[in-house]
Amino acid sequence: MSAPLPPAQTIARLLANPRFRAAVAVLDREHERTVEDIIRLTEIPSPPFKEAARAAAYLAMLRDHGLEEVEQDAIGNVMGRRRGSGNGQTVVVAAHLDTVFPEGTDVRVRREGTKLFAPGVGDDTRSLAVNLAFLRAMDSAGIVTRSDILFVGDVGEEGLGDLRGVRHLFLEGRHRDRIAAFFTVDSPDVDRIVTGGIGSKRYRVGFRGPGGHSFGAFGLVNPAYAMARASLALAELPAPVDPRTTHCVSVLGGGTSVNAIPNAVWMEVDLRSQSAAELARLEAAFLGAVEAAAAAENAARSTREGPVTVELTPIGDRPAGETPAGAAIVQLAAAAVAAQGYEPVLEASSTDANIPMSLGIPAVKIGSGGTGGRAHSLEEWIDVEKGESLRGMVASLAAILAVAGVEEG
Amino acid sequence: MSAPLPPAQTIARLLANPRFRAAVAVLDREHERTVEDIIRLTEIPSPPFKEAARAAAYLAMLRDHGLEEVEQDAIGNVMGRRRGSGNGQTVVVAAHLDTVFPEGTDVRVRREGTKLFAPGVGDDTRSLAVNLAFLRAMDSAGIVTRSDILFVGDVGEEGLGDLRGVRHLFLEGRHRDRIAAFFTVDSPDVDRIVTGGIGSKRYRVGFRGPGGHSFGAFGLVNPAYAMARASLALAELPAPVDPRTTHCVSVLGGGTSVNAIPNAVWMEVDLRSQSAAELARLEAAFLGAVEAAAAAENAARSTREGPVTVELTPIGDRPAGETPAGAAIVQLAAAAVAAQGYEPVLEASSTDANIPMSLGIPAVKIGSGGTGGRAHSLEEWIDVEKGESLRGMVASLAAILAVAGVEEG
Repeated sequence: MSAPLPPAQTIARLLANPRFRAAVAVLDREHERTVEDIIRLTEIPSPPFKEAARAAAYLAMLRDHGLEEVEQDAIGNVMGRRRGSGNGQTVVVAAHLDTVFPEGTDVRVRREGTKLFAPGVGDDTRSLAVNLAFLRAMDSAGIVTRSDILFVGDVGEEGLGDLRGVRHLFLEGRHRDRIAAFFTVDSPDVDRIVTGGIGSKRYRVGFRGPGGHSFGAFGLVNPAYAMARASLALAELPAPVDPRTTHCVSVLGGGTSVNAIPNAVWMEVDLRSQSAAELARLEAAFLGAVEAAAAAENAARSTREGPVTVELTPIGDRPAGETPAGAAIVQLAAAAVAAQGYEPVLEASSTDANIPMSLGIPAVKIGSGGTGGRAHSLEEWIDVEKGESLRGMVASLAAILAVAGVEEG
Repeated sequence: MSAPLPPAQTIARLLANPRFRAAVAVLDREHERTVEDIIRLTEIPSPPFKEAARAAAYLAMLRDHGLEEVEQDAIGNVMGRRRGSGNGQTVVVAAHLDTVFPEGTDVRVRREGTKLFAPGVGDDTRSLAVNLAFLRAMDSAGIVTRSDILFVGDVGEEGLGDLRGVRHLFLEGRHRDRIAAFFTVDSPDVDRIVTGGIGSKRYRVGFRGPGGHSFGAFGLVNPAYAMARASLALAELPAPVDPRTTHCVSVLGGGTSVNAIPNAVWMEVDLRSQSAAELARLEAAFLGAVEAAAAAENAARSTREGPVTVELTPIGDRPAGETPAGAAIVQLAAAAVAAQGYEPVLEASSTDANIPMSLGIPAVKIGSGGTGGRAHSLEEWIDVEKGESLRGMVASLAAILAVAGVEEG
């Protein structure tokens, strides 16, 4: 993991290494196979919490690549280890199996020239295929790394998945004690390196009351009014620009009939911050506001049939974290990206890297190469034009190998 | 329609009429047939806006009873006329075909002793069968009324049906110019006579905005906050106790994902009053509050991607109305109920009678007899124990015949 040379020099030396150049030649030669893998994997639906089919396919693909200890863990992640020369450390190279798209979404890929259109094609299916390409290139070129590399297709990165795959990897997985660095290859763009992990707390907040006929029971407490108060209180809570902190009432529902006081309503709330301390402050203020809102409704109308009560269900908890800009993994990733002519930008976001960042393990999100857009929409697309696609892949492979260390000679 | 005698005497005279007594004997003798009709009709599902199957069955049953001009009108009501001796006026005796229960609800009747359990059995299926029993009893006993009686099974009484069946009958139907009085036989209890029609205005209020990522687009307007403001503004609007006036946020929803500012949320609102003027005042205040809520949100956060806008959809409009306590129809119905030993209570509610009441046409809701409970729930039940069932039926038949006038001799 140590980088005896300045990062730019380490990268330059790696790029000049004949084995690295041989690996790049394999990426180039097999580019169409990578595109085929992207299409094949994209067309296996992988909705939140329903990644099993794609995981099984990816597990079989990992097996075809001759890794050791290819397996699926208890949470559903699939992985295989590429043994290094033996410093005993493991570098994880992950991509996530899940998409945001529900069951029944048409995931067939439409190809127009070099563009591929399909839900999930770029976020994050391209990365799954690219990681396999990296593996084949390294094998073909006879590259031996110092660290082991654990290739992982993980579950539960999106939304309510709540990073459960990578969380399991670090908290329960059998490799957990040896992971020295973590790359998540997520989405095409390689210039944007994520070094900050936005923390989030998400709640489903239910408000219950006695309900009743809208006319006959008029005057009883109405949980919709308690929720409205809590909602407006959240809207007014402070949200610093730095460290960037945000809050949102995002989904809501409740009630049964236009002629009835609802007996239950609910809302989902998203709280985020780059700072764990700021997030904790925001969360405490919000939870206080929820209780105050219920109390205010119980004071405003009759509780003779029962009061409004609150039911809090945590539905998301992503720890905030950061890999310092001076960390070797950041410096090497930025140098690898810059060496391909991109201008690296360090960003904060919410990715699988949040988990290792929150544990103090060096971690970044890098890109899978090429271009793309409209992620999380049915119009999602990537462009697999070979020149741009390869350029990004080479940047990310260089970052990974620089961190894992390559035996020379 | 004139009542030359005091109401109690008119009823006493009617009850003593040999033909009326013969009719009562028929109700008694055929009681089990009425129970069978209740079961048969209850087991034909009749969800809101999907009354066609039950309407067809009821139309055939009306035909079996030898009425004239048996037909289905354009809106879906089924009806037939029992010609009177010719004063040219029509008394409507209606019951509603629809239930509140959606398609797929198990409507099989479970019989335990004299109790029948099934969704819709009392509200209002029993009344449909009881009206047929009245018809058979009158025919069998050779009763000739002065007014024509139009027996109607009407659609759209419940919820979003918005009284469309009876509205059509009075505004478009071919009998509309001759209707002098209106009875809706609705639910078992005969002691509660509805003489006041609670008016209601119902809206679905949509709030739209640009949406966006909860973190990336933080600071943009959020339609959920505009809705919360409108909701709390409604909660604070004045609601007089007399004339009784109420308001309620009842059903709400919106948003797509916990990590997105919603681009659309909505709520359904129920506004009611015994007074048309008070209802108009409440409606105007609410609509003003909705606009103000959107404006406040647009002032509170950024509209650079677009403002919050409001979309109002009227989903209910039931006119308020009243049949004065001194009106002959009320006096006769109360006397008929009292003559069977009940204590009549005059009430305000929202029933099919709202429409004629709002047009100044004498109208009341009377009961179908027997007892029952849990209307609008899956545990709805009625008790068809013959003694109590008949007693209520006799009260309502007497009320109808007293208003229609019976030729003596």
